[in-house]
Amino acid sequence: MIKEYYSYEDFRRDLRTLTKKINKPFDTIMGISRGGLSMAQMLGEYYNIRKVYAINSIGYDDTIKLDEVRIFNTPDLSDSKAVLIVDDILDSGETMVKVLDILKEKYPDVILYVASIFYKKSAKIAPDWFVKEPQNWIDFFWTVDLKEDKV
Amino acid sequence: MIKEYYSYEDFRRDLRTLTKKINKPFDTIMGISRGGLSMAQMLGEYYNIRKVYAINSIGYDDTIKLDEVRIFNTPDLSDSKAVLIVDDILDSGETMVKVLDILKEKYPDVILYVASIFYKKSAKIAPDWFVKEPQNWIDFFWTVDLKEDKV
Repeated sequence: MIKEYYSYEDFRRDLRTLTKKINKPFDTIMGISRGGLSMAQMLGEYYNIRKVYAINSIGYDDTIKLDEVRIFNTPDLSDSKAVLIVDDILDSGETMVKVLDILKEKYPDVILYVASIFYKKSAKIAPDWFVKEPQNWIDFFWTVDLKEDKV
Repeated sequence: MIKEYYSYEDFRRDLRTLTKKINKPFDTIMGISRGGLSMAQMLGEYYNIRKVYAINSIGYDDTIKLDEVRIFNTPDLSDSKAVLIVDDILDSGETMVKVLDILKEKYPDVILYVASIFYKKSAKIAPDWFVKEPQNWIDFFWTVDLKEDKV
């Protein structure tokens, strides 16, 4: 499979594009860990939102998909009106479907939006906003930048 | 006050330095939101740790310090043995002291380590590992990179 390096500068440019697309108000940002954490932080700074939360998902074991996606550490949304849930990529979409199910059940009155950088059309769910479709396997900078021997 | 821009490349270089200093094992990484989220994500990738959590703190209102630091969304550490708590900067150290107090009370058997990029010697607590002391006000890339008119 062709691997494509996704640099911090790519990320920065794509987040700028994303902020131009997002056209609904929200008061909370929730990043799906690990992939959505940097995104949640930078969007929190951009929108001046301090309620930047994380939620955990375990569903992949490296590249082997497990049948069950487990969601845990659901943050307290009792004083949130609208939440932007962010992740780097909607691939199968299974994690996002499960996160939405859990949040809708626990917080039926909270408005939920989804934004991702990458979105595969084969995913089970479409984000409200995304930037692009992945053409190759993406080597995100946060995955490779500390591992490689670059300085 | 002199402002110093802290770029992604600075961050990457400092995280590499930090990984060379960290010399204890841990199975969980917890970033203090918002400042520690990118750091938690990248270190999680580096150490191949999937238990990357967040904890929330509200204590500053822009640059005005509030008397009370409120900690919330404490993640479930019941299956963790040792946790690396990360934040961008230990300034007053009040947030970290409060986070440690809460975690020690709730999880007395969990080993807690603290790592930060910046550490002010006037802080109430010293991290186990840090990279450098801040000389100026730090404009972190995650704060300014989406706001500025750079492309």
